[in-house]
Amino acid sequence: MDANHHFTIPIPEGDIDLLAIGEILIDFISDETVSSLQEATTFRRYLGGSPANIAVYVAKLGGKAALISKTGIGAFGNFLKGELRHYGVSTDYLIMDHRVHTSVVFVSRTTGTPDFEAFRNGDYQLTPIEVSEEVIARAKVIHTSTFALSREPCRSAMRKALHLAHELGKIVSLDPNYSPRIWPNYEEAKQVLREMYRHASITKPSLDDAQRLFGPGNKPEQYIQMFHELGPRLVIFTMGKDGVLISQDGKLVSHVPARPIKVVDATGAGDSFWAGFLVALLDGNSLERCALFAREVVGLKLVTVGPLPSTIDRHEIYNRLPK
Amino acid sequence: MDANHHFTIPIPEGDIDLLAIGEILIDFISDETVSSLQEATTFRRYLGGSPANIAVYVAKLGGKAALISKTGIGAFGNFLKGELRHYGVSTDYLIMDHRVHTSVVFVSRTTGTPDFEAFRNGDYQLTPIEVSEEVIARAKVIHTSTFALSREPCRSAMRKALHLAHELGKIVSLDPNYSPRIWPNYEEAKQVLREMYRHASITKPSLDDAQRLFGPGNKPEQYIQMFHELGPRLVIFTMGKDGVLISQDGKLVSHVPARPIKVVDATGAGDSFWAGFLVALLDGNSLERCALFAREVVGLKLVTVGPLPSTIDRHEIYNRLPK
Repeated sequence: MDANHHFTIPIPEGDIDLLAIGEILIDFISDETVSSLQEATTFRRYLGGSPANIAVYVAKLGGKAALISKTGIGAFGNFLKGELRHYGVSTDYLIMDHRVHTSVVFVSRTTGTPDFEAFRNGDYQLTPIEVSEEVIARAKVIHTSTFALSREPCRSAMRKALHLAHELGKIVSLDPNYSPRIWPNYEEAKQVLREMYRHASITKPSLDDAQRLFGPGNKPEQYIQMFHELGPRLVIFTMGKDGVLISQDGKLVSHVPARPIKVVDATGAGDSFWAGFLVALLDGNSLERCALFAREVVGLKLVTVGPLPSTIDRHEIYNRLPK
Repeated sequence: MDANHHFTIPIPEGDIDLLAIGEILIDFISDETVSSLQEATTFRRYLGGSPANIAVYVAKLGGKAALISKTGIGAFGNFLKGELRHYGVSTDYLIMDHRVHTSVVFVSRTTGTPDFEAFRNGDYQLTPIEVSEEVIARAKVIHTSTFALSREPCRSAMRKALHLAHELGKIVSLDPNYSPRIWPNYEEAKQVLREMYRHASITKPSLDDAQRLFGPGNKPEQYIQMFHELGPRLVIFTMGKDGVLISQDGKLVSHVPARPIKVVDATGAGDSFWAGFLVALLDGNSLERCALFAREVVGLKLVTVGPLPSTIDRHEIYNRLPK
């Protein structure tokens, strides 16, 4: 660790803290705890999609968030728009298209690895022309996911957004949540990520993400270098109970240990962590303090069944951090 | 009414009583009674699709039924196959294709007209080559739906099936369950139905079906003539509480009144009626007696919440009919 842990990256101009761009969809999560999706008989509807969830968490933390994504116009699209509005995420750039269905994902509630079936439709049909240049110019952070990169025309829409955001000096955040079930063509995924990562300034791989993307068998420090080589100056590497490694320009800045927590619901934990980290970053905190803040937010999430409350007092969280 | 009501149509050779061909899908029905789909938060999974349900009812009544349809290979396709097997419907001709999703339909439980959103995928991707000529030759009745005709390549698969069944002298049953939500191109629907009806020997329009297809304002007898003019020799016209009209070769054979019933669940009532009618027809009953038998089956359905039991004793039902 070195003195750089007080480094703060320059915050771009903009009246929108986070512009998430990528999938919004309905998560149908089984009411029963089951060992496979086939056994589940009842499902409950939730707002889903990692970029959409991160936008919601940023709004809950008091940040200004917007989302570029695509849904259908029916009951499910209206539900999602209503949820975004309820949490204060701007829907000014949400495309509701009568020619598509709202994407849905069925997920089993399980004690092991969740089983899922994705019925993608609207989310990947976002086109480049539907990506507003004006809102990218207004944002401080542009965040997207690997899920959103997996299909055309959404991939081209992401390319336009990330390229422009990079040119405008925005903080570009890319989530390497690669899943072979969502993107079976692994070679294509690697190639597309290699291209898109050139525009990214910050990325938050989990150890699982890294192993799925680069194959198993490496040490965290090796995975972190692999991500740096793709482009991002900042790599925030999460390892569950082993805490978080923060790396800047190829040098390890900090290790923030996890705290022992009795987990009651880990759904969306990674998204809540990342929203917390980015909010603290925009507040001008050091990278280490961003991780400490994010650890508090994810701690709230892990001990809460279901989503966090509509508003989370971030100043109360800051007060809990070491001075 | 005339003496023809003792007419029985010739029963073709075959070891399969009913071959249903068309959609199988998952009905996700809301647990709550709501006024719109958007308000529903939890959904329960059921086997759905009118042809599939009719095959299940035929099997429950002790007939031999098979289904030609297409699902995906995941949890939902496996669930549907398991349900068919459970009820004794042959899945020998069910196509499970890894390249498609199992179709799903979300339906609100409501006291008014149910609101729905259909996510069609596998069901309409059945291709002509996947329609076994051998199983058509083995069947006595081939039944399909307008839903299945609404998209290619399934429409071409239906065309092949109905044409061959007609050539082989099978009883060809076509359900004119036209819905503009499922098939927005009304002119195309009329044209396709006109073509397909030339192969059909028997059809069961409801008054609602007739009004949606031909427009409102006609009398039941006029609608019945319109269906005869399309091709079928037998038109079984259901009018809910006003009973059933039976028409053969353009002549009204019988009016079977409905019985006053306190309806607790009308879901799938039409399918249970039609399965009962066809089973009784294959048992060699007069058309009027078929309608009386079907009235008993639908009566069981209307006073039962959810699906009927796995087996229904049809001899017990015959014993209840007037001698």
